[in-house]
Amino acid sequence: MVQYYFLGRGAISNLQDLLNNKKAGAKDAFVVMVIDHYFENKNILDLSYLSAEDLIIYAETDEEPKTSYVDKLVDLARSKGRLPVAVVGIGGGSAMDIAKAISVLLTNEGPSENYQGWDLVKNPAIYKIGVPTIAGTGAEFTRTAVLTGPTKKLGINSDQSVFDQIILDANLLTTVPKEQFLYTAMDCYVHNAESLLGRINDSMTIALAEKSTKMIEEIFLGEMDLEKLLVASGMGGLAVANSAVGICHPLSYGLSIELGLRHGYAICIAFNQLEEYYPQVKTFKEILKKYEIVLPKIITDDITDEQLDRMAEATLKNENPLSNAFGPDWKNIFSKAKVIELLKKM
Amino acid sequence: MVQYYFLGRGAISNLQDLLNNKKAGAKDAFVVMVIDHYFENKNILDLSYLSAEDLIIYAETDEEPKTSYVDKLVDLARSKGRLPVAVVGIGGGSAMDIAKAISVLLTNEGPSENYQGWDLVKNPAIYKIGVPTIAGTGAEFTRTAVLTGPTKKLGINSDQSVFDQIILDANLLTTVPKEQFLYTAMDCYVHNAESLLGRINDSMTIALAEKSTKMIEEIFLGEMDLEKLLVASGMGGLAVANSAVGICHPLSYGLSIELGLRHGYAICIAFNQLEEYYPQVKTFKEILKKYEIVLPKIITDDITDEQLDRMAEATLKNENPLSNAFGPDWKNIFSKAKVIELLKKM
Repeated sequence: MVQYYFLGRGAISNLQDLLNNKKAGAKDAFVVMVIDHYFENKNILDLSYLSAEDLIIYAETDEEPKTSYVDKLVDLARSKGRLPVAVVGIGGGSAMDIAKAISVLLTNEGPSENYQGWDLVKNPAIYKIGVPTIAGTGAEFTRTAVLTGPTKKLGINSDQSVFDQIILDANLLTTVPKEQFLYTAMDCYVHNAESLLGRINDSMTIALAEKSTKMIEEIFLGEMDLEKLLVASGMGGLAVANSAVGICHPLSYGLSIELGLRHGYAICIAFNQLEEYYPQVKTFKEILKKYEIVLPKIITDDITDEQLDRMAEATLKNENPLSNAFGPDWKNIFSKAKVIELLKKM
Repeated sequence: MVQYYFLGRGAISNLQDLLNNKKAGAKDAFVVMVIDHYFENKNILDLSYLSAEDLIIYAETDEEPKTSYVDKLVDLARSKGRLPVAVVGIGGGSAMDIAKAISVLLTNEGPSENYQGWDLVKNPAIYKIGVPTIAGTGAEFTRTAVLTGPTKKLGINSDQSVFDQIILDANLLTTVPKEQFLYTAMDCYVHNAESLLGRINDSMTIALAEKSTKMIEEIFLGEMDLEKLLVASGMGGLAVANSAVGICHPLSYGLSIELGLRHGYAICIAFNQLEEYYPQVKTFKEILKKYEIVLPKIITDDITDEQLDRMAEATLKNENPLSNAFGPDWKNIFSKAKVIELLKKM
């Protein structure tokens, strides 16, 4: 679990003290700030307390982070000839994943693709702070930094990927467009459903996923409350960090890789067709309806059989989530034909 | 928040690896085990992996821990002439509080009473592991080590009091007598009520306290589930660690100090009379009824006015909890006469 959190509107104001404390006493101390490029020249974030020594990276997040991009940023940070005292990630899941990956790679020899997998990181990472500006990715609470490598989209799953401190400030959420806001929150809703229906869970992850689910339903079918949404997202992140995803995420990876869809959007496209597995799809559809969001059909007749086949293969590569959902015998239950049948509905 | 937990029946088996990892490579490494004296000669805990160098303390827990007792144990641990690599607390709230206090005092000059209060600890504590054998104290998750000093009962409230690792093993709960089991679980239920009705809370502590409350009601009015109870207790602990108690705890301190009642029992005696403040008292009474527990009237005619006065004074000393419950103007709302009126019902 993440050790320290600040929560509340205006909580971002604690960042200055946190960084100054880390810098105190250290000569030539500097910090690396990974900030979603959306915030560049926007005058939303107060960064006036940073010094010329600090490295501000306005991260490209139009595409999900690639290992090659992370390696480039690590080289940039390394060019100072000394290590930073802190790495800060401010933004959505991508900005936070990039910050996590940089903090790991600065103390572990690259390239970053060497660490895609489970518990491959050897040395302690640099102290890091996560500041989500969208709710639902769970990235602020998880032990993974999801990267797209030359051969696979897979996280750096490690205790060293966990933020030391997070700041949950609802004021930062107000900049997100409605669709993206909803898709990302629903990503958390789907995490919870997958965690609850999986085999890899325990009383703690069940309790967290149940409460997160209930809160998201209250927020989206009842009264919007951004701070509560950050907490629901956090609980969902904690739940999935200690359990596993299920059927929806593997299908969404297939959609994302082949068609270049953003994660939250791909999750919604996939989840919308999974009512036979997840009872929560019904409530999900109510929420979409209330927010007047119509999901298009993505897989059209234009998509070739080869593409469909590659999507199905990309889906079926996700052994851990699928055995979490269906058990060790998952290959006999969730066939390629079934995957293609589901994909064709999406 | 506590960074690492193991959860599950048999989870205690992880303790050996954790301690061996800490010892690995260090010369003359030893650990301090603080174990509730209940477990002495009981053959419940496997300690066969410990070496002659390790220090096993079967802690007295018939009385709640005193600062003088902690100081004595710290001297004992110090007599080895080097610091342990880990301190482990196995038992109820007292054993865990003693372990926390020892881990702090080994790296911070005593006496321990100097650290009763908020954020008085200067140096990082020794790595410590908490293993609750009763559910509901929350001690495994909080940042306090409650001690009775020469002048006050007050915790060492510090980030340094937080366990680095906890182990939640439902198998260890089966030894607790029914009454104590219930009183301790209800202590958590009361924490939640106080946290929810206080001013010092946020969306996170509210979500945790709500879920913990619901789980305890499901467990005690529905189906008993010890693992779920450990999680409910943990969530309640997390909630109260990041918010504050309210009216019931101050009253229980008055009862405990003057009449020597155990904490969980005193809490139940007090909460039973607080229906005008806490709607949860109704459900609390249903639970007592289901478990056939009748709370006696403790304050009788034999108790002198001087004693009652001292109890009221001890209650009213708790400025933080009472201002959490009633606001900054609490002294005008919660008078000494009102406290005595409530105490007389108990």
